[in-house]
Amino acid sequence: MSEAVMTRKATLIAWSDDLDKIYPTLILATTAAAYDVEVTVFVTFWGLLAFKKNNRGITGKDWMTKALSVMRKGGTKSLKISRLHMGGMGTWMMNKIFKKEKIASLDSLIEEALISGVKFVPCQMTMDAFGLKREDLIDGMGDPAGASTAINVALDSQINWFI
Amino acid sequence: MSEAVMTRKATLIAWSDDLDKIYPTLILATTAAAYDVEVTVFVTFWGLLAFKKNNRGITGKDWMTKALSVMRKGGTKSLKISRLHMGGMGTWMMNKIFKKEKIASLDSLIEEALISGVKFVPCQMTMDAFGLKREDLIDGMGDPAGASTAINVALDSQINWFI
Amino acid sequence: MSEAVMTRKATLIAWSDDLDKIYPTLILATTAAAYDVEVTVFVTFWGLLAFKKNNRGITGKDWMTKALSVMRKGGTKSLKISRLHMGGMGTWMMNKIFKKEKIASLDSLIEEALISGVKFVPCQMTMDAFGLKREDLIDGMGDPAGASTAINVALDSQINWFI
Repeated sequence: MSEAVMTRKATLIAWSDDLDKIYPTLILATTAAAYDVEVTVFVTFWGLLAFKKNNRGITGKDWMTKALSVMRKGGTKSLKISRLHMGGMGTWMMNKIFKKEKIASLDSLIEEALISGVKFVPCQMTMDAFGLKREDLIDGMGDPAGASTAINVALDSQINWFI
Repeated sequence: MSEAVMTRKATLIAWSDDLDKIYPTLILATTAAAYDVEVTVFVTFWGLLAFKKNNRGITGKDWMTKALSVMRKGGTKSLKISRLHMGGMGTWMMNKIFKKEKIASLDSLIEEALISGVKFVPCQMTMDAFGLKREDLIDGMGDPAGASTAINVALDSQINWFI
Repeated sequence: MSEAVMTRKATLIAWSDDLDKIYPTLILATTAAAYDVEVTVFVTFWGLLAFKKNNRGITGKDWMTKALSVMRKGGTKSLKISRLHMGGMGTWMMNKIFKKEKIASLDSLIEEALISGVKFVPCQMTMDAFGLKREDLIDGMGDPAGASTAINVALDSQINWFI
């Protein structure tokens, strides 16, 4: 069997924009890449908001998608944890704990992922629905694609996770 | 290797009844089916509520399961998104956006899934726990089955997702 | 092919501490084990709280992790369902329904899992972040390990679920 055939693959569907879901997504993606696993992160639905540039301002193409971008502006700096909200104190504490433990920031993890070849594929349907343009997303994202792309990469992957 | 052996399979565990989780479940299921993948959707826990007939009224077998059916009546028309509740406005907006984008409705996606051979398997334990009968669920669901069925289909699947 | 090579594996990432997520994790793990599947449950983030001993009191290494252990003390007895909170009434009802249906308790399921050889691997990074020690966790957990362990077991598994 040739080496190419042996390449192991992992496909992560990043559906959530919770800080505590984006963290394991990026940690698992970068760790897998470190073991020469070909990693694709298909970024869909709320997940896409996590990969918006920070402080992008109002995005969207009509009043609804613009309103959505105000209510949930996205970007790594605005993500919240899914529990213990307490008016933002939970997220503040969690970020503080991560920093103290010297756990890499989301931005560093994304950078590390991109350097190690992790492919981030934005979901076309989500971009259309939320009225997001390529320039609204962080640099380094791949071309937008649909569910059929996700299915075909997933069929060929040893690891599939919906996060 | 015979063609039968080569059939690719995908097993989706539909655990959630959030509108924004049922959508990707159905989109991934129908897309996979379009690529001749044998798709099983094992519908369990809250997920089963999404597959109740709309306007089924009070269901259940005792006061607790009846109370549950009042608090969370289920059916595609009653599903809510998991974020941006805002007293139902978030769900209203999301449905509006989906319609504008000409994204198929949940009911159309279910119909398409059934036509293309996707198997929906209701979890027996959940049916018992929620006091749901076959006639409470939409037409076209397969026979109820337990976790052992889910495990055995999953072991044989290239794609496994817990959604 | 030798029998050893043929051993089927399942890796479950237990990320959540919701009662209604821990239940399927344990039911799927014990059911898979009953079919001679080698099951690893990688317990990470909030999931680790579910595997704390009950009534462990305040845990943690500094004021933040101690505060966290007060706000979310963990252990099977303190878990809540993810929907229908209603000031704890939803969880009370769900536990009542499970009992009536003679569904095994979380503690019995954990015991059954351990007896049937399911490996529970606590995430080292989470233990550090939450300031948890081995003795804070239930007996029978394996040695703490990192994401690379999770990736390597997952690459070799027929079933992968992120729950």
